[in-house]
Amino acid sequence: MKATVSVRPKPGILDPQGEAVRGSLRHLGFDVTETRVGRLVELELAATDAEAARQEVERMCEQLLANPLIETFDIVIAP
Amino acid sequence: MKATVSVRPKPGILDPQGEAVRGSLRHLGFDVTETRVGRLVELELAATDAEAARQEVERMCEQLLANPLIETFDIVIAP
Repeated sequence: MKATVSVRPKPGILDPQGEAVRGSLRHLGFDVTETRVGRLVELELAATDAEAARQEVERMCEQLLANPLIETFDIVIAP
Repeated sequence: MKATVSVRPKPGILDPQGEAVRGSLRHLGFDVTETRVGRLVELELAATDAEAARQEVERMCEQLLANPLIETFDIVIAP
């Protein structure tokens, strides 16, 4: 199965990468008021059951893919 | 308006970050066959028209947010 994990900086948490992108976009003339940069992790899993896959990917997020102190994640499972 | 840009390494292009994540996940005991890592850029725009916003974000992608040689991007506009 395929899983897509979106990892985002938590609201209120400083996002230096987003700030840098926003500064560069404004410098290029774009009218952008806020920018946040996160990660997109796409996985191909051996699991064949959607619920088992979701639970496995949640454990991956907690152990490696996201930092729960400063980031949120959401998971989409597709066959 | 809000825009979400997903930037992914093109199929066939080497993705060292994805390879590193895959190696770490397998080391942790997860059965993952492929991993690709991209970026998620969320923007708050001054533009009020969805079509104008999309065109503006496409220009941002071409100029700054994505490297068209090795990455693809897709854009979702929300009010």
